[in-house]
Amino acid sequence: MASKIASTKNVKNQTALLAAGHWLILSVAINVGFLLKLIHDGNLRIDWYGLHNGQDNGGHLSSYAAEPKPDGQIQNKYINLDHGDPTMYQSYWKQMGDRTDVVISGWQSVSYFSDTKTVCWFLEPGFANAVTRLHKLVGNAETGNRHIVVGTGSTQLFQAVLYALCPYDAPEPMSIVSAAPFYSSYPLITDCLKSGLYKWRGEVDDFNKEAPYIELVTSPNNPDGSIREAVFNGSGQILVHDVAYYWPQYTPISSRADHDIMLFTLSKSTGHAGMRLGWALVKDEAIAKKMVKFIEISSIGVSKDSQVRAAKIMDVINDSYEDSKTSNESKRFFDYAREEMAKRWSQLREVVNKGQAFSLPTLPVGECNFSHQTFATQPAFAWLKCEQVDDCESFLKKHKILTRGGVHFGSSKKYVRASLIGHEEDYNEFIRRLSLINSLESP
Amino acid sequence: MASKIASTKNVKNQTALLAAGHWLILSVAINVGFLLKLIHDGNLRIDWYGLHNGQDNGGHLSSYAAEPKPDGQIQNKYINLDHGDPTMYQSYWKQMGDRTDVVISGWQSVSYFSDTKTVCWFLEPGFANAVTRLHKLVGNAETGNRHIVVGTGSTQLFQAVLYALCPYDAPEPMSIVSAAPFYSSYPLITDCLKSGLYKWRGEVDDFNKEAPYIELVTSPNNPDGSIREAVFNGSGQILVHDVAYYWPQYTPISSRADHDIMLFTLSKSTGHAGMRLGWALVKDEAIAKKMVKFIEISSIGVSKDSQVRAAKIMDVINDSYEDSKTSNESKRFFDYAREEMAKRWSQLREVVNKGQAFSLPTLPVGECNFSHQTFATQPAFAWLKCEQVDDCESFLKKHKILTRGGVHFGSSKKYVRASLIGHEEDYNEFIRRLSLINSLESP
Repeated sequence: MASKIASTKNVKNQTALLAAGHWLILSVAINVGFLLKLIHDGNLRIDWYGLHNGQDNGGHLSSYAAEPKPDGQIQNKYINLDHGDPTMYQSYWKQMGDRTDVVISGWQSVSYFSDTKTVCWFLEPGFANAVTRLHKLVGNAETGNRHIVVGTGSTQLFQAVLYALCPYDAPEPMSIVSAAPFYSSYPLITDCLKSGLYKWRGEVDDFNKEAPYIELVTSPNNPDGSIREAVFNGSGQILVHDVAYYWPQYTPISSRADHDIMLFTLSKSTGHAGMRLGWALVKDEAIAKKMVKFIEISSIGVSKDSQVRAAKIMDVINDSYEDSKTSNESKRFFDYAREEMAKRWSQLREVVNKGQAFSLPTLPVGECNFSHQTFATQPAFAWLKCEQVDDCESFLKKHKILTRGGVHFGSSKKYVRASLIGHEEDYNEFIRRLSLINSLESP
Repeated sequence: MASKIASTKNVKNQTALLAAGHWLILSVAINVGFLLKLIHDGNLRIDWYGLHNGQDNGGHLSSYAAEPKPDGQIQNKYINLDHGDPTMYQSYWKQMGDRTDVVISGWQSVSYFSDTKTVCWFLEPGFANAVTRLHKLVGNAETGNRHIVVGTGSTQLFQAVLYALCPYDAPEPMSIVSAAPFYSSYPLITDCLKSGLYKWRGEVDDFNKEAPYIELVTSPNNPDGSIREAVFNGSGQILVHDVAYYWPQYTPISSRADHDIMLFTLSKSTGHAGMRLGWALVKDEAIAKKMVKFIEISSIGVSKDSQVRAAKIMDVINDSYEDSKTSNESKRFFDYAREEMAKRWSQLREVVNKGQAFSLPTLPVGECNFSHQTFATQPAFAWLKCEQVDDCESFLKKHKILTRGGVHFGSSKKYVRASLIGHEEDYNEFIRRLSLINSLESP
């Protein structure tokens, strides 16, 4: 079950692995207690609503709305980089005009059922087909001999995986672990209902590794973009690979990921967060069936409308690469997205390198089998370190930049995660403010 | 918090309330143990997939597919009435042609956010508006001074309610109760993750009624169509009203339901189960916020595409009643649906009354404030009792009729729940087979 993403020579991932080990020691003490407190207080962060209603926001948050603010207003506004809201992609889809339009009639989406011949009876065949085509095109995941399970975002699929892997009659909840910094939603989702089936343990190292436990391997990692493999290596290890960001706009595609359970999401591939669609590629039929059972119990399936739309959008991408005529008309999706991410990372590294206030992780460089370009991983988020203050999130908030503090990821307050995939206007303003801070903070 | 649905003189609900009391005594012993066993075995019923793969089904199940089978084939097929798949409505929506079509472009549904000015930041304003209009039109629920929370079906909203009402730091899980027969999914959803926040207790009467507990009041009730009020009446009572079937095709609308927490679903109102959309009307802002938090943690919102489509469909219904010109062109939705349910119930009662094999509950008659018609509740399900055999589900299965046995609803095996809202061809074949059984079983 070893990760194949990271196993090629092209990707220089050793820096990232060393960093993971570093965190393992540094942040274990702070974090478990802090996360438990967050959950107990009912303040589960990712406070999508609360920020808007806060006392000190000074008005509407620009990134909250899908539409950017008019020029001139933005300099007094809060820039919300807390969520990975992928509004960066909207302008691309607008350029595509009516090519991605779908018409859905009133008599559609009446039945619960999509295809009773497959394990996932609520999976629309057109969506399954588009997913398979897209993976074949990009070369980022094996789809052969696998079941596709569709979910209401990869968030629901993560819960479905926990349900599927944790026996109902076990004497103790199964340990769920992941090396810090880990995706901040994992502990919240795992512990929000105080399940007797599983329990968040974060990156503690003192659990029984002979007994079954689940390790979440996120690669490229959210929040820091590192390329990862499993780190706990116990004999009870069950791996779940969150490969939401293993797309050619974020990282070189070095090989087809070939893990037992892989989670993908539309939000970070085509940028359609509002559809709430994710999919899992699952080798073991019994596990796929239990995941389907969970989605049946918790929501009796997944929106057909979103599956129909997602299929259309994915197939427009597939067609654009397969049909050379189309490709001459306009930039193709992954080319656009990779170039846009490259531009943003170039701007970000430039401004960070100009001063002493911040630093960014070094990320591995590799050649991409899809684009045949050589580039460093350019994640959807910046894992920004404040070099001169202890509480980076609060510091940036004073400058009206909203980010998510490191403690939410099992790490230190010196770090924040900042989304880089919002509207261009917000991004430019973010860069302008970082530059301003650098000039103020310089010795 | 007393139910106002049942409080008018028009609705003769005493039969139903007596029946509820009867069940309270009769079935308590059988059921809790059985349900626990079902859950522990991992055989959570509602086996949407399993039936298809069964040994003895003799082929594809007719109701599984959205399209009916061609004539002549149906007599050898299994008729699947296990699920409340509302395919009955499909022919109506086909008749409406392109009036309910929606066109959705590729640049839509990019952001997670819909409207950050409301508590439910993922609620599409058009959907909220259509819901409010529809309730005002039908007169089945108060919408003033309430928050609308949208969910991935009312199934997700039920979980959101449990999360919102059960304190995280309570020493014991909160008791979740409901008088039998209760909706079979409630115990499965409640106990599937062995939550420490809440625990299914069904209709046991020996819990501490002074401490907070949640009673689910489903009215009209699933599975038996009875009109209900709360029955446990302890001082710790917190009521959640599932009013999924409080629509004028199923029961006379006697007053605007005015409860603290009310759950609705599109599946049973307009018949669009595949959209996976439900909504809650919630008085208390703090509860609404916690429900929103749950949906944020468990799926980061709800499909925008389905909300956009649902708004269109609801508004076509709203317009048809408000615009007299439209109404002359074709039958309006609730008139069509009420007449179709009346026709089906008339056929069902006729065939049941002709023999000794089956019986059906007597349901209350009332005048409907919406249609101004006087009629008896005509539920989406038949709560059918086998008078001459002990295991009604197995008996009907021999006749290739798939239903859900009474034990799943906390009741006896002599009962089954059979969906009456499937395709017309399946319904007619169901009636034909009941007639055949009656003729075979007659003394």
